[in-house]
Amino acid sequence: MKVPPKLVFVSGNAYKINELRIILGETVEIEAVNLDLPEIQGTIEEIAKEKCQRAAEVLQKPVLIDDTSLCFNAMGGLPGPYIKWFLQALGNENLHRMLAGFEDKTAQFVCTLAYSPGPGKEVVLLQEQMDGKIVPARGKGSGWNPVFEIDGQTFGEMELDDIRLIGARSRVIARLQKWIMENSQSN
Amino acid sequence: MKVPPKLVFVSGNAYKINELRIILGETVEIEAVNLDLPEIQGTIEEIAKEKCQRAAEVLQKPVLIDDTSLCFNAMGGLPGPYIKWFLQALGNENLHRMLAGFEDKTAQFVCTLAYSPGPGKEVVLLQEQMDGKIVPARGKGSGWNPVFEIDGQTFGEMELDDIRLIGARSRVIARLQKWIMENSQSN
Repeated sequence: MKVPPKLVFVSGNAYKINELRIILGETVEIEAVNLDLPEIQGTIEEIAKEKCQRAAEVLQKPVLIDDTSLCFNAMGGLPGPYIKWFLQALGNENLHRMLAGFEDKTAQFVCTLAYSPGPGKEVVLLQEQMDGKIVPARGKGSGWNPVFEIDGQTFGEMELDDIRLIGARSRVIARLQKWIMENSQSN
Repeated sequence: MKVPPKLVFVSGNAYKINELRIILGETVEIEAVNLDLPEIQGTIEEIAKEKCQRAAEVLQKPVLIDDTSLCFNAMGGLPGPYIKWFLQALGNENLHRMLAGFEDKTAQFVCTLAYSPGPGKEVVLLQEQMDGKIVPARGKGSGWNPVFEIDGQTFGEMELDDIRLIGARSRVIARLQKWIMENSQSN
């Protein structure tokens, strides 16, 4: 498999696009495309794979997509891929209440990258995760950053550069970079 | 629009198939087909509509599908269409713990029927709901029957015939029957 010199990243999230460019910028050019694709229900891997396949079909070219899941261990990994709906319904100030009835407050932030070499071709999945726990919101930032705590600090209380340093997203992007270098098109 | 004398009901749920046959049996013949279709994420209506369209495309004929959602009011209607995943992960004995951190334990059982007259044609949605509350599991039965309480009794503590008498499913099937009679094919 040969990766083209320009990667189409399907995302409308400025932070994710930026982080990808920071880490991958020297290896490949990133073109961001905002496509509003429905996602299926299922496991994190099924959802990422199907979304990636669909994006490759719609755009008729190789594409990269990113899925971020927040998995509560007390709930067998849920809300997981459905976290965005819960965040939208509860706000990050109420998210921790979902775990009030459970002793185990630990959670995993799972970052999945899915790359399709083109329509109908097999999708490559790369995944990294990190352990933390769910706490009442502290610190700044949107999304679930203020409720995900690691070593006494929430993502909302850290600087973006520090999150980047420890985060699952940078680790999975670094793995993608390695994979691209092993599979890149020779000019 | 003309409804055919035989309705293809896409479901593998014996209880749902039976209930449909009991109420609709005199009006149309029900053929049950078990199709394993992925569902999208979204609102109850979006999910039902998309699933129905997809089933009509796969089978290339008119189809009826059923969606059952359990919406917690404290969570803005969630888990709603995702209830099956939470039930699977937590079991009905732990489902009420999700609401331990919220004062409002009320919930809605929402039953949606979606009928497609055929591939590419517009889907007809019928919906009925009933109010109850989420309690620690009591009584027999699978699914979330033992945690959904109405007037002091959970569905798990009622007889099936009584649930049928008051339930949202029978009401929405009765509406479907009325709709079919108004739209049925004359021989």
